[in-house]
Amino acid sequence: MVFKKITLIGTSTESFDDAADDAIDRAEDTLQNVYWIEVDEFGVELAGVEGRQYQAEVTVAFELEE
Amino acid sequence: MVFKKITLIGTSTESFDDAADDAIDRAEDTLQNVYWIEVDEFGVELAGVEGRQYQAEVTVAFELEE
Amino acid sequence: MVFKKITLIGTSTESFDDAADDAIDRAEDTLQNVYWIEVDEFGVELAGVEGRQYQAEVTVAFELEE
Amino acid sequence: MVFKKITLIGTSTESFDDAADDAIDRAEDTLQNVYWIEVDEFGVELAGVEGRQYQAEVTVAFELEE
Amino acid sequence: MVFKKITLIGTSTESFDDAADDAIDRAEDTLQNVYWIEVDEFGVELAGVEGRQYQAEVTVAFELEE
Amino acid sequence: MVFKKITLIGTSTESFDDAADDAIDRAEDTLQNVYWIEVDEFGVELAGVEGRQYQAEVTVAFELEE
Amino acid sequence: MVFKKITLIGTSTESFDDAADDAIDRAEDTLQNVYWIEVDEFGVELAGVEGRQYQAEVTVAFELEE
Amino acid sequence: MVFKKITLIGTSTESFDDAADDAIDRAEDTLQNVYWIEVDEFGVELAGVEGRQYQAEVTVAFELEE
Amino acid sequence: MVFKKITLIGTSTESFDDAADDAIDRAEDTLQNVYWIEVDEFGVELAGVEGRQYQAEVTVAFELEE
Amino acid sequence: MVFKKITLIGTSTESFDDAADDAIDRAEDTLQNVYWIEVDEFGVELAGVEGRQYQAEVTVAFELEE
Amino acid sequence: MVFKKITLIGTSTESFDDAADDAIDRAEDTLQNVYWIEVDEFGVELAGVEGRQYQAEVTVAFELEE
Amino acid sequence: MVFKKITLIGTSTESFDDAADDAIDRAEDTLQNVYWIEVDEFGVELAGVEGRQYQAEVTVAFELEE
Repeated sequence: MVFKKITLIGTSTESFDDAADDAIDRAEDTLQNVYWIEVDEFGVELAGVEGRQYQAEVTVAFELEE
Repeated sequence: MVFKKITLIGTSTESFDDAADDAIDRAEDTLQNVYWIEVDEFGVELAGVEGRQYQAEVTVAFELEE
Repeated sequence: MVFKKITLIGTSTESFDDAADDAIDRAEDTLQNVYWIEVDEFGVELAGVEGRQYQAEVTVAFELEE
Repeated sequence: MVFKKITLIGTSTESFDDAADDAIDRAEDTLQNVYWIEVDEFGVELAGVEGRQYQAEVTVAFELEE
Repeated sequence: MVFKKITLIGTSTESFDDAADDAIDRAEDTLQNVYWIEVDEFGVELAGVEGRQYQAEVTVAFELEE
Repeated sequence: MVFKKITLIGTSTESFDDAADDAIDRAEDTLQNVYWIEVDEFGVELAGVEGRQYQAEVTVAFELEE
Repeated sequence: MVFKKITLIGTSTESFDDAADDAIDRAEDTLQNVYWIEVDEFGVELAGVEGRQYQAEVTVAFELEE
Repeated sequence: MVFKKITLIGTSTESFDDAADDAIDRAEDTLQNVYWIEVDEFGVELAGVEGRQYQAEVTVAFELEE
Repeated sequence: MVFKKITLIGTSTESFDDAADDAIDRAEDTLQNVYWIEVDEFGVELAGVEGRQYQAEVTVAFELEE
Repeated sequence: MVFKKITLIGTSTESFDDAADDAIDRAEDTLQNVYWIEVDEFGVELAGVEGRQYQAEVTVAFELEE
Repeated sequence: MVFKKITLIGTSTESFDDAADDAIDRAEDTLQNVYWIEVDEFGVELAGVEGRQYQAEVTVAFELEE
Repeated sequence: MVFKKITLIGTSTESFDDAADDAIDRAEDTLQNVYWIEVDEFGVELAGVEGRQYQAEVTVAFELEE
């Protein structure tokens, strides 16, 4: 049983929770057997975007197929 | 005046805020004189739970009785 | 093009998101050309306040005028 | 569902694995519902002991009873 | 031989050394077989106290009884 | 000459060494030109597994083909 | 309620405590509503000074006026 | 909008800047929509190479296609 | 003798050295008695700029006037 | 009583424990009054060696003679 | 002009300041051209010593002769 | 096979690359079998020197003779 970890940054115009969910949604759409995620960092982009772009950098752990 | 710090992990099916509140609720139910908490880490458990379990690891500081 | 970074702590009686927004609001009221913010730390003050005071320490990056 | 984390240091005259197991044994003897442990640090004490005392500092996470 | 670590914050109106000693005094009053302490952080509280309250956060390591 | 780094978590019911070897085995089965690995973290899963599942999170560095 | 944090380095020919107090004195002379300080680092300058110059780098948190 | 981050190590016989550029070149050759890179670490390999091999470990952030 | 530290990010289209010099130039243009700078982080912006924008985040230490 | 700390990297073709012991053996062969060691990092070298070379970077603390 | 850094741990039965001075005294007795020291860590040994042994781990920077 | 690590700070009036090379030159002049170096930190000294003194703190790893 081997896990792999990758790092994604989800975004949202609403909140940090939505930004994290955005990254998790993406992970679950493209990966099988996602076990957990860890939040590495939250930030907000203000230049070059309309309003505020909340960002959540997360590390995603999923089980590799044998 | 001496404080002690302990580490709790609250959980929620809704959000990181609720997970942190869950840990604070527990701290206030069982400890007197809780002064502040620090968030150590947010994560989300996806395997072995229904949906998403948001987790907030917090350090709780409370004053010890003389 | 030179940026400067300063550190603010926003507060809210509601949530970590509101606390972060509180700091960003303050930054945008008093600074020109704010580019992005990074969340350094979340905490909750429980002593000497009514209810819970959510706190978000953020670093604000803005462009200095030439 | 709330977890608590505590920190133990197990010791062994044989290996780091045994030192970690020593701490886990102790945790399982005295706590219910231990979920996982994280290794914080390995070290070896050489003065004031016979031979080498391998040490494993671990953080133990267990579920609190409702 | 298993050690446990706990975190205390001692306080003093005089100095960081006194604040650390305050935490060690408390540890030795309530725990058997304290082996060493590590200083995690020094700080000074200025609001809501008279003068300056020096604070020393320390981690205390003590041997658990068999 | 460019290297890439990825993060794997190997598991074992026996020891941390075996868990690290498990991750390295997997890396060598699927990647060419693995140069070195760094251990990021050791842990032990106790809930939802039989006995103890030793885990070794490692970062694997391998050379990319030109 | 928004706080700002700035970083000062106080100096003393006597001790780390005096160096920290030197920085706090300066903060209180020029800022209103200083709430707390955190010690970031202690050091000693030995070249280009007479004797030993103890240095305390501290982060000062103060409340901004509305 | 979701970003992914990967880690590359570029190399050069000339300088750290060239080593970083080497990694960025590689990223831009094989990835669409690279937004920014962060330097994680610089090093120099001296054994098993002719002269000095400057190395730059960088994290590359790029936007994933919808 | 009290020092203050501030954080600047210099930029350059050429190299990390130039980016750091850009921040130091700015510091010396606007501050008296700059003593030293520490490099916190190097990065490269690739989106929304022509070519590559090298960035150097530096902390600047300068002596405050009595 | 003054201690000095130095950093060694031991190696082994067998295990991390053996690699740490290799470094401790060397320390005890060449230094008097070694008190303790701390493990800084484990790694495995795979290129330019036969099989796997386990490495343990350790910090060695020993008492200096008066 | 090249500096070297070494790590010493000074001890005192009185205070952290004295423990740091103890390490600096030793450095100045045996090394030429000591420029500065940085405090890495404070601790207190309580077992196997009479009373309390304050310890200061410091890094000493000195200029190497050409 | 045992490696030792030492820490040097090289200096240059020109660039960070030259400062790192300065430290590596020194290491290779006085040590046999230098394998690699890691850059710990870059800085610039501005007071008490002419112009700017770029500094590179590096850790040097070399093989000890059997």
